[in-house]
Amino acid sequence: MAWDKVRALVFDVFGTVVDWRAGVAREAVPLLARHCPAVFADVRRSRYAPSMELGALNLVWHRLDPWPDAVAGLARLKTRYIIAPLSNGNIRLMLDMAKRAGLPWDAILGAEVAQAYKPMPQAYRRTAEVLGLAPGEVGMVAAHNGDLAAARQCGLMTAFVCRPTEHGPGQRTDLQPQQAWDAVADDFVALADQLRLSPCAAARTAPRLAGGQA
Amino acid sequence: MAWDKVRALVFDVFGTVVDWRAGVAREAVPLLARHCPAVFADVRRSRYAPSMELGALNLVWHRLDPWPDAVAGLARLKTRYIIAPLSNGNIRLMLDMAKRAGLPWDAILGAEVAQAYKPMPQAYRRTAEVLGLAPGEVGMVAAHNGDLAAARQCGLMTAFVCRPTEHGPGQRTDLQPQQAWDAVADDFVALADQLRLSPCAAARTAPRLAGGQA
Repeated sequence: MAWDKVRALVFDVFGTVVDWRAGVAREAVPLLARHCPAVFADVRRSRYAPSMELGALNLVWHRLDPWPDAVAGLARLKTRYIIAPLSNGNIRLMLDMAKRAGLPWDAILGAEVAQAYKPMPQAYRRTAEVLGLAPGEVGMVAAHNGDLAAARQCGLMTAFVCRPTEHGPGQRTDLQPQQAWDAVADDFVALADQLRLSPCAAARTAPRLAGGQA
Repeated sequence: MAWDKVRALVFDVFGTVVDWRAGVAREAVPLLARHCPAVFADVRRSRYAPSMELGALNLVWHRLDPWPDAVAGLARLKTRYIIAPLSNGNIRLMLDMAKRAGLPWDAILGAEVAQAYKPMPQAYRRTAEVLGLAPGEVGMVAAHNGDLAAARQCGLMTAFVCRPTEHGPGQRTDLQPQQAWDAVADDFVALADQLRLSPCAAARTAPRLAGGQA
């Protein structure tokens, strides 16, 4: 099958690897509760304290938690494939998230390396080029049908991993695959199962890859 | 001291992290012994077997062994710093070496990301920019005085790690620091000692980061 040719898996990150909504809610809600409804007035009045906190809120994006299956699934997928993010977030952001959460990327790829944002074709094509691979040797893993559609247009293989609560309990988008993607799975561990990756290999090679969740 | 400000260490790779000479000798010498002196004539005569072997030799660069201290030293340095290669080798080459040898990089940086080759100033400056850091918050680690001199010109901190056999037993260059670099060490473990990084932290966080040496 076509997965046999694949050498690298590249991942959408926000929503696919990390739960951005829970992370932002965890840090933003207490902050807004303290400052709301006068938060913007506060910022204007004080040049120090609120701006410090708003700076901290901005850094929330560097401190998002992975979905529960993400680290274990990536560790298994890494035993066979090159694994890397292909996100519109910049290198430093991907790097901070990975270091904090223990995401075992082999490299940090994405818009900053490809010099094009998804869903522009160059974001996918240049990423394959950087890896020295043909598009069909790269698989795009995403929770978003639109991302996969753009990747497929460029010749990449596609894997849809459903994240039905990315946008909260009332989510209405991306609950189902909209095309016959090359793989469809409920999470990264299930994807590793589908691609026939042994749990034992991952346990041998990637017990803990960074500081873990602090 | 100025190392307190440093958030990321970037590394020259060929000669500093990996022993390219031993790797090339290991794979090239048997090959040349089989084909020499008629190796080039062979290539012209046969379109298959010798070119396959020469292709394999080309891939030697993807299979170089790290110096014995490199993985352990990097694991300790990684507990405090972002660690990444800053090499003129491309991303895929760095990635293959890291995956095979277990080099625990946080990201793959270098000429391909910076879009400039060392020792051009942009190679160093753009790398700091990609990391979201000022030049003085980045330390360059290299076994080559010239690399460190170029990095210092750009405002980076500098660490010289001596690799006296990189060019074999008769090596005459880079046996001594040629300037008062910000750190001078015999290997990466000694560098971690100088920067006061605990061996215990590394043992907790980075026992084995990839497939190890196969």
